[in-house]
Amino acid sequence: MKLTILFGGASYEHEISIVSAITLKTKLSGFDLSFVFCDQDHTFYLINPSKMKATTFSKGEHKKMPKLSLINGSFFQKNLFSSVTHVGTVLNLIHGADGEDGTIAALLDFYSIKYIGPRMNACVFSYDKRYTKYLCTAKEIKSLQYEVLSKNEHKDIAIPYPIIIKPASLGSSIGVSIVKEESELDYALDTAFEFDNNILVEPFINGVKEYNLAGFMANGKMHFSIIEEPQKNEFLDFEKKYMDFARSEQVLKAEISDKLITKLKANFEKAYRGLFEGALIRCDFFVINDEVYLNEINPIPGSMANYLFEDFSACIESLSKSLPHAKRAKISYEYIHSISSAKGK
Amino acid sequence: MKLTILFGGASYEHEISIVSAITLKTKLSGFDLSFVFCDQDHTFYLINPSKMKATTFSKGEHKKMPKLSLINGSFFQKNLFSSVTHVGTVLNLIHGADGEDGTIAALLDFYSIKYIGPRMNACVFSYDKRYTKYLCTAKEIKSLQYEVLSKNEHKDIAIPYPIIIKPASLGSSIGVSIVKEESELDYALDTAFEFDNNILVEPFINGVKEYNLAGFMANGKMHFSIIEEPQKNEFLDFEKKYMDFARSEQVLKAEISDKLITKLKANFEKAYRGLFEGALIRCDFFVINDEVYLNEINPIPGSMANYLFEDFSACIESLSKSLPHAKRAKISYEYIHSISSAKGK
Repeated sequence: MKLTILFGGASYEHEISIVSAITLKTKLSGFDLSFVFCDQDHTFYLINPSKMKATTFSKGEHKKMPKLSLINGSFFQKNLFSSVTHVGTVLNLIHGADGEDGTIAALLDFYSIKYIGPRMNACVFSYDKRYTKYLCTAKEIKSLQYEVLSKNEHKDIAIPYPIIIKPASLGSSIGVSIVKEESELDYALDTAFEFDNNILVEPFINGVKEYNLAGFMANGKMHFSIIEEPQKNEFLDFEKKYMDFARSEQVLKAEISDKLITKLKANFEKAYRGLFEGALIRCDFFVINDEVYLNEINPIPGSMANYLFEDFSACIESLSKSLPHAKRAKISYEYIHSISSAKGK
Repeated sequence: MKLTILFGGASYEHEISIVSAITLKTKLSGFDLSFVFCDQDHTFYLINPSKMKATTFSKGEHKKMPKLSLINGSFFQKNLFSSVTHVGTVLNLIHGADGEDGTIAALLDFYSIKYIGPRMNACVFSYDKRYTKYLCTAKEIKSLQYEVLSKNEHKDIAIPYPIIIKPASLGSSIGVSIVKEESELDYALDTAFEFDNNILVEPFINGVKEYNLAGFMANGKMHFSIIEEPQKNEFLDFEKKYMDFARSEQVLKAEISDKLITKLKANFEKAYRGLFEGALIRCDFFVINDEVYLNEINPIPGSMANYLFEDFSACIESLSKSLPHAKRAKISYEYIHSISSAKGK
């Protein structure tokens, strides 16, 4: 089966996406894979699979490879005397901006290219943590209390210390700080506002139980990964997460009760249904006093959370056969015709 | 000042967009206007301004005009022996799907083209009426109670008759019905589900006071239109709204108290700030017992609600000078460099 891995993007997680793509090259070796790289200027390149290593991009060697553009139904490669269309399902593996904010979804839908990945609406509700909170409220999913601060706005924070400060729309712990007392606040806010005009404040709960669960819908049914209890020291910083994105060894299941497993899956499904169809996502949960709280939705998790699935290739194959496709209105010009004839024109 | 009117789109409101564009040709005659048409197959055409009439499109005459494609910074026209780039601010005038659902916003942002119109997030919260309700809850804006029904789901409606049934994501009254008693319900549901997989049910309040207000942010300040009390018989159906989109004569102000005007503007601003910057939108409100309820946000109102503004050209000019631009992350490859050097590669 043909599959095009789309990676890169003008995002703070650009390098993470490269690492993810390299990892999937091995994990999905049973597929007929192509690799399309989106550079920071939004130019697409067709990458020779044998050159899929990090230094290809850091050294700028991709610039010697064929440029691609989007046309209806495919990526288009114009050569000197010929052209090639690259048709096939795309796996959107651009983490952060472009990939997870809805832009790539909109582009692929506009050009009628089938893809694995979150649709535009799903992106908006998962990329910006404020909107994830809106979603939780609407779908009655528990999440921690929060406050929003905007740049150039002076507002006291009502949540007692310790608190966690997060840029509203960045993943991979970029710009995130734990603030234990007021003296640390200004520096943490400055750091977060460097990355985003809006930040989210939540209580920081030391030693809170955390569980990650990935899953997707195929053939109308939810398919879940194992549940992992991530290792942590306070929280994963960017460098640790970066290495984490290269993970390919399956992890051990968290030792939790069947009742809790059922609860975690039920919350996942509540968030997923009607919004994330077409995507394999990972939800990160907190468990406090036996209650499940949604912490974050990763609509394009690092290396697609392959390490949480027993047969990752089979998952991608079944998902690729259950992709939603954007409905397009058919245009008949009946109003213009009827009005033109009424006017006698 | 150069301005490119982008209109058409693969949308049920395709024809309405054509009418809007023809209206703006007159209303914005002081600008150096170009016209770019997006057909139902998502091909872009550069339309000769002298051919800006409805029958050009219904007869397919646009197909003889130059095709355009999107490249970084502009629409690109390839001729036999030369090429032209069409640079300049775009006014997104595609109503409904493509234009109002966030797709065009994503495309223009991806290709770094400046535009007047709602950004992707703003589109998601206004195009789908369910998400407008989420926004109202989060921003503490009053709106009518509602229920969501999904296709193939059997659920009793708790809201007492009469009710109004709306497809979640279509404008211009398409698929909307007022249901006075249970016997009319099935037909109304079938009609709405023809257009969308999700529908919104709200109480129908006969004779409710309705007010429309348009506005935009420029130079950090809100600019409001006059407030109109729209004429109505039950509700505007598609054909009436269609004609309505050609409106260009200024309307009369609604005769309401200063207190109510202030309240309407305050609610508009609550919905607008932090989300709709870059767009001129129209909010439709209900007033019940002196309380203001947000009914609908039109992120690209018909003919840009020009008839609500005293000096519409000046509005578009000031808005075009206050457009947000998408921030792009700069890529440094510092992690790859540091990891490669640690590995000695």
